[in-house]
Parts: sequence; structure tokens; C-alpha cells
Amino acid sequence: MPLHPILLAGQWRPAQATGSFRIDNPATGETLPDEFPISAWADCDAALDAATAAAAILRTTPPEKIALFLTRFAERIEARKTELVDLAHAESGLPKAPRLAEVELPRTTGQLRQAAAAVLEGSWALPTIDAKINLRSVLAPIGPVLVFGPNNFPFAFNSAAGGDFVAAIATGNPVIAKSNTSHPGVSRLLAEEAFAALAEAGLPPATVQLIYRTSHADGERLVSDPRTGATGYTGSRSAGLKLKAAADAAGKPIYLELSSVNPVVLLPGALAERGAKLAEEFAGSALMASGQFCTSPSIVILLAGEAAEQFATAVQARLEAAPVAVLLSSSVARALGASVQTLQAAGATLVTGGRAVDAPGCRFANTLLRVDGDTFLAAPEKLQTEAFGNASLLLTVRDAAQLTAVLAHLEGNLTGSIYSDTTGADDALHALVEPLLRAKVGRLLNDKMPTGVAVSPAMNHGGPYPCTGHPGFTAVGIPASLRRFAALHCYDNVRAARLPLSLRDKNPSGKMWRLIGGQWSQGDVAV
Amino acid sequence: MPLHPILLAGQWRPAQATGSFRIDNPATGETLPDEFPISAWADCDAALDAATAAAAILRTTPPEKIALFLTRFAERIEARKTELVDLAHAESGLPKAPRLAEVELPRTTGQLRQAAAAVLEGSWALPTIDAKINLRSVLAPIGPVLVFGPNNFPFAFNSAAGGDFVAAIATGNPVIAKSNTSHPGVSRLLAEEAFAALAEAGLPPATVQLIYRTSHADGERLVSDPRTGATGYTGSRSAGLKLKAAADAAGKPIYLELSSVNPVVLLPGALAERGAKLAEEFAGSALMASGQFCTSPSIVILLAGEAAEQFATAVQARLEAAPVAVLLSSSVARALGASVQTLQAAGATLVTGGRAVDAPGCRFANTLLRVDGDTFLAAPEKLQTEAFGNASLLLTVRDAAQLTAVLAHLEGNLTGSIYSDTTGADDALHALVEPLLRAKVGRLLNDKMPTGVAVSPAMNHGGPYPCTGHPGFTAVGIPASLRRFAALHCYDNVRAARLPLSLRDKNPSGKMWRLIGGQWSQGDVAV
Repeated sequence: MPLHPILLAGQWRPAQATGSFRIDNPATGETLPDEFPISAWADCDAALDAATAAAAILRTTPPEKIALFLTRFAERIEARKTELVDLAHAESGLPKAPRLAEVELPRTTGQLRQAAAAVLEGSWALPTIDAKINLRSVLAPIGPVLVFGPNNFPFAFNSAAGGDFVAAIATGNPVIAKSNTSHPGVSRLLAEEAFAALAEAGLPPATVQLIYRTSHADGERLVSDPRTGATGYTGSRSAGLKLKAAADAAGKPIYLELSSVNPVVLLPGALAERGAKLAEEFAGSALMASGQFCTSPSIVILLAGEAAEQFATAVQARLEAAPVAVLLSSSVARALGASVQTLQAAGATLVTGGRAVDAPGCRFANTLLRVDGDTFLAAPEKLQTEAFGNASLLLTVRDAAQLTAVLAHLEGNLTGSIYSDTTGADDALHALVEPLLRAKVGRLLNDKMPTGVAVSPAMNHGGPYPCTGHPGFTAVGIPASLRRFAALHCYDNVRAARLPLSLRDKNPSGKMWRLIGGQWSQGDVAV
Repeated sequence: MPLHPILLAGQWRPAQATGSFRIDNPATGETLPDEFPISAWADCDAALDAATAAAAILRTTPPEKIALFLTRFAERIEARKTELVDLAHAESGLPKAPRLAEVELPRTTGQLRQAAAAVLEGSWALPTIDAKINLRSVLAPIGPVLVFGPNNFPFAFNSAAGGDFVAAIATGNPVIAKSNTSHPGVSRLLAEEAFAALAEAGLPPATVQLIYRTSHADGERLVSDPRTGATGYTGSRSAGLKLKAAADAAGKPIYLELSSVNPVVLLPGALAERGAKLAEEFAGSALMASGQFCTSPSIVILLAGEAAEQFATAVQARLEAAPVAVLLSSSVARALGASVQTLQAAGATLVTGGRAVDAPGCRFANTLLRVDGDTFLAAPEKLQTEAFGNASLLLTVRDAAQLTAVLAHLEGNLTGSIYSDTTGADDALHALVEPLLRAKVGRLLNDKMPTGVAVSPAMNHGGPYPCTGHPGFTAVGIPASLRRFAALHCYDNVRAARLPLSLRDKNPSGKMWRLIGGQWSQGDVAV
């Protein structure tokens, strides 16, 4: 089978390939037939040139056209749903239903439609007007955006359709999508539909481009190129930090979503009150998508004692009873094994699992490890190694003092959960725990596992380094996620007819919220 | 005279000094009597510990107390105005009036009061509520903020009272102020008043700390320390980029304001229509504060021809006729001479000035250089060397094509100005110039020089790298400048009594704007 073409400068055309790759179906081990190119720098260079030209046109493109693109794209994804779900299943091993067909695909089209609404409404850009001195500013497109998507959401975080893609397009930027290596076929189908939707909406054809793979060096060159506006990256910490170093050195914004162990603290009152239910909740959350969510609860922290032992036993029983799901790829399975070994080498002991499973496809036994507070505090960094997949670490602490010491050693995480009892018995301990955990996480939960990430304006899918690169931004949630891909443009004494529509005296839609004289308003500027 | 103490952990105490320094009065050359310590790492370390403890208290401090601090601080600055102005004049050589007493000091107290109002009102934090799923988020303090202030605004950008200080405090963070080396005495007086105001407002005494100087290595260690939340830096590009590299490697946000040449494009119609007036405007703006503003117009771009020659002659005459003002320090004068030499070495020719002036104090002749488009395009980077002070470069281009080539080679700048005629003759050229300049600057001006920076919600004092580190943020303007020093905190299913007041169903002030269900509202959450 010939190499698949890449989507470059408005055409599907052969890559300048330095090599090619095929992937395995993780559920069967069978190599899939499609062969994809590894692009040379020439492809990246051409993509940046085409994106630069598209960015110049997009800057003055009416929001209605961008919204139309997003909507048509969503409709086209729905029209091709069966083929997309089949291929995503073959490439990722994720279940067709409910996961791919009923949860992730609707989430993806929902994001596109929410973004379309935000584009039409316009408030995301925080238009701000000081009419007295004719000074006006608004968030504006930052320039071509590179999107490096992760392996674990072939639709919802796909480089060519997912959260970062949507946010970058909605802010008026062209996207160069670098497909995740583990689902190139899904990326291709999505890019085909995006390309068709661009034509229907009348956007520049180079608004969306797709390459499959580059060398690591070319990835670093892409994120630091003068033509690049910004980068969105979701993936492994090691690869992400190399891109960050390259982008930082060139002064190019890069938004990273890296590893997270999502600590869950179970206070003793909660455990006494509903320990069996908490074990069920925790095991269910830890095994969701076989633990391959960014927000999977990988560390659960309890006070040592009888209740903790009962919890451990109950979780162990549930993990052993649960089916062992297929992992996303053989490299995920290998990395999971390596992480479990790292945790053991640092002092964690295996309760159950800890080995690959002899079954068709890439599988690793549902795994639980344990460690006590003293051991954790002796090697806190190693014992926070993310074991991406169906493995969790149960951490027992001696007392409140050791609990706070452990929390003080946590790295930045996307989420942190605190379970407390309903009668107030945990309140004093909660008051001790909350400030420490709050400082380490983007989203703080009460009495709830972290695996659900609603696409809501109030969501924060972000957090302190090293789970992301900047604690002020979120990768999920509209409008906030859009603002990552924007530059602040101020207009000082600029003539009225030259202003962007959003900054003119008349409110262009009558719906856009603007900060006029310090007050949010949907009205016109009073003349 | 003994070494001045530093303000550390709520006490004025002797520094762990590795050395000391005194500064010269730039107007007289006389060394001022006060002697200040160069702190060892032990001081920095102690300051970070104290700031961490203060941050924990500030996080739950009512906004009323923070606002009271800001207001009392402003009042105390006003009460000590004469002493402050006298010392700032002695340390900086800036005129007492109007500059220090009538412009910069009122601007400084105005910033404090605007921030106090923003703190009381609370909307700056973009509280966002999704009541249906009990998901809420708000911008929250990021942690201890280091402020490195510049030499050119002893009050308004002072590490212990200026824009970054105010923004960091208003968002609820303690500040470790690293005084600019050229005005340690003013920093001391301001920190004394801040310290007294903290006590009056009941804020933790380590909310404001002051050190005068550290080694460069300790500066890099400070910005990358795990206890640091973020850094605000305004100053030279070379020192700033070293701090940026250190902060980036540690994943710590750093907001930089570095060099900017603030290009001004004079289109031919405007020049024909009002050339003499433009020469007057340009020379006036270029000599404001002896060119020592971040937004000083250091490059003016014109189409070659008779009108450009007349403009050059008129500017030359004005520069030669104008008095030569005192520069901020002998090192500023030296750096200015070096930059002028760099420009000349790269092909610029001297029209007037270009040498130190034999007069009392640090002075450099009002300077104009010229270069043509071909020469500029042969060395665009060197010819954008910032000559901080009273020197400007007049750049003549052959035609529209060369004008666009020059604009495409501009680095990121804080501002860019376009002057065009009033009858439409320049419109075609404007349409060519505007997108190119817009992409390179934070604030785009029409028919106006860039030197005025209003403290307005609509201001952007920022722009693309390398004039700052991120094009989405502004260092001036409330509320936007506050958001630099914040982390996004999300609360998922958190019990009502544990939520920050700003996220509870009831609007705490009845005035705070919150995004509830996607609509901005000053009301309560409808239950």
C-alpha cells in the first residue's frame, strides 16, 4: 500500500518522507495495513509558510465563517461516525460503545459546537474599551498554532479535531496538526472532514494541515520557528519538556499538559462512614479507560489503621475481579511495566498485578501497589512516577503530621480530591489538608473521583508545573481555553473605521459582553 | 555610615552582606552618602520562607484588608512626598517637577487606589460558576512574587510600590522587592511606608520585603526556587533573558518587560500634510525623559524623498536646539554610547550628537542617526539595537515594497505608530502597513506618539517577544495586569461552606461581575 499523503498548503500531497511507519491493533497485535510517512523538515517548512499566509487571511475573516466551519466539521464527523469509530477502535483498542461512539465522539462534536457559539458571541476575547481616551484592546489571534495531541483520546484531543485544535481555530488561528503516532488513521479521517468543511465555510484551505510524524529535532524546530504563534502539546513529560525548552528559548508560548498522579485523600471519618463505597468508587475510577485518563487517580492517601487495611483489601478484590482491558499500544504497556518497576525500586510493594497478561493484545494486570509515609518521604519524586494505565499506589501515613509532610512534597497535579465525612468529624483534618492540596492542583474535588472532565466554562484542566507549563491556563472549558492562543492587541487613538468590529462603538452582535468603562455590557458605547 | 538594613520577615535587620554599594547623583557626579548591602543567598532564602508563610495567611485574608493596605500605602506616599521627590531627584536626576512630583508620584498612588478598587470589586479574578454541576473556578494568588523593577521609574515601576508590586499584592501575593540598583534610597523609603501600612491594615508583616542587590546567580536562583510563585521583571534584555532561562527551566512564570524600539511609520500623505508638526511631535516624544521611557520612539520610518529630508532637517534642528537632559546614571550614559556605536558599526550614519557632553552629570548629546532600507535589511537585528536614552534612528525606505520588507524584519515591540493623512491619500499604503505592524506590537497607535501610557483597563503595555516574554499579558492596566500573578483554581463538587466567598451562590459584594451559566452577572446564583 502506498504511503498516505499529508495535508499541506491546501492539498493532499506526498510527504517529503524520511521514512514511514505502520501501527498495530493493540487488541489483536495485528499490524494495520495503512502506511504513513515520517516528514522531513521540508514538509514542516512548507506547512509553516502556508499557515502564515492563512493566518493573514483569517485575521480579518468574519466570525460567522469560522463558526460555520466548526459547525460543518461537527456535522461531517457525525456523518462519518461509523467509519471513525471503527478505525479508532482498531487503532486504540478503546471500546466502540459506550466509550468511542457514545461518549468521546459526541464530546468532540460538542466542543466544536460550543466553540462555534463562542466565536459568534465574541465575549471570549474580553474586548475592553476606554472611550474617553479612545483606547481599546481585545484578544486576537496569536499566529499559526502547532497541535501535538495525546494517544488517549483519538477524537476529543485529536490534533485535527480536539480541544487544542478547536481553541486555536476559534481564536482565528490556522492549525498544523501533528498526529499522535498511535492513531494516524483517525487523524487522517478527521483532517479529511476538516478540509471539506473549510471549503464549505470559505476559509483558507491551509487553515488545517496535517503531518503524521517528524524527527524529534524537527519537532523542536517547529515549536521555536519564528513563524509559529504558539503550541499546544498533550503527552509524555519527557517529550513535552524538550519541546518546552526549545519553545522557551525562542520566546514562543507553549501550553503543555504533561503527567499527573491526581492524589485522592480519604479522611478517616469518610472511611469509617462509607469505606466499602469508597473502595468501589476508587477502583471504578482507577480502571476507567484502563487508567489511561490524564485525571486517573494514581495515588490514594489514607491514615494507616484498620480502616485503611479494609480499604486496601476491598480495592484489591475489585481490581482482581475486574476484567483486564486492552491498553492503547504495546509501548503504553511497556511504559506501564517500567513505571511499576520504578515504583517498586523506590520502595513500593506490590499488592496485586504488576505484570503483563498473557492474553490477546496489549494488557497489563490491574495493579495496586502500597507504600508507607516514611518510605514515600525518602523518595518522594520517584514515588510520584506516573504509571500511565491501570496501576495505582496506596499510600498510608502514620498521622496528621506525616499527612501534611506528604502533601507538601506533592508535585503539581491536574486534580486533587478530598473525601470527608458528613457529620463534621473530619473538619479539623480537612482544614489542615485543604490549603496544602489546593496549592498543588488545578481542580480540587470534594467527595468525588477526578476522572470526569466536563466541558464547562468553569472547568480547569490545568494546574501547577510540572503537570502543565503555567498554572493560569486551562486546556478544557470554553471560553477560557481559547485565550491561550491569543495575543493582546491594543488600539490607541486608532480611527473608528480601522478598528476591529468588536471594538467599535456599536456592539456588532448585540450579545457580545465588553468591558466598557470598567463595567461589563452588551450594549453600544454611549456616544 | 553603617549599611542600611533590609526588610526581611517583618523586621528591618542587617543583611547577610557579601558586599555593599553606594550610588552617584547623576546630575552632579557626587557619590551619595547612603550605603546599601549586597545580600548573600541566606537573605534570599529567609525572604522566601517568610513570604511562603505570609502567602498562606493572605490566601484567606478578606479583600477589604488588602484594599485598605493599598489605600493607606498611597496616603503614606503622599504624606512623605517631599522627601520621596527629593531623594528620587538625587538618585535619578529626573526633574522634581513636573515629572516626579506632579506626574509620576500621582500615577503611583493612582495605581494603588485603582488596585484597591479592583480588589474590593473582585471581578478581575473572572469568577465562573456552572451551578448545574457545582463546578466553579476563579483566579487565585499564585504565591510569593519577586519584583525586579527598572531604573527609569523610581516610583511608578518601583519594586516596592510600582505596577508589578501593586498587581502582585492585589491578587493576594506577598512581594519580595529587589530594588533597582540605581534608586535604593527611594525603594527604602517606599518599603518603610509599605511596612507601616501593612501594620495598619493588619496584613502579615512579611507581605512586603526588600532586598537591594544580590549576585546574578542568586537572582537566577530566586526566580527558579520552588517557593517562588512568579516573577515580574522590567529592565535590560540581557539580564532579563538570563532570568527567563532560569525561571523557564524550573517551570516558574516570569513576566518580562525588556527592550523596545517602538517604530513610528510616517506615511507620505501625513508628511506632506503636516510634516513640520510631525517633526515637532517626534522630537518632543523622543526627548521625553531624555528618551528613557520603555515606549520611546527610537525608530522612525519614512519613504525617501524631499519630504523625508525636510523632516530629518527639522528633527535635527529641534534636537540640537533642545537642552541636553541628565541621564539616569553613568552606566545608562555608557550603554547609550555603546549602542550608538553598534548602530554606526552596522551602517547607520550620525546626523547629530553621538557623544558624551562635557557638562556636570551624566549627559549624552541629543542624537539622531540615519540609515536607508538597503543597509537596514543587511543587518536588521543590529540596527534594532535599543539605544536607551536620547537617541533615535531615522530609516528611509525606497518604496512600498521595501517598507513592507523592513516591517517584516521588525522584532516584537511594545508599540508601533502609523501616521496617515486626513484625506485618504495614504489609505492604500496604510492597508499594506497595518497588518505587518499589528503583528509585531502590543499597542498600535494612529497619529500619535507612543510615550504616553495611560493606566486604563484598555491599556496594553506588552507585546510579542522579545519586548516581553508572552504576548497575552500587559504590565499596565487594571484589571488585566493583575491576572499575570494568578493561578486558576477550580472547585468541583466542593461543599458550599468551603468555597471562596467569590464562588458562593451569594454575590459577596453585590458588585462583583461573575460569569454564571455563560452570562456576566452581578447577581446571586439563582437557586
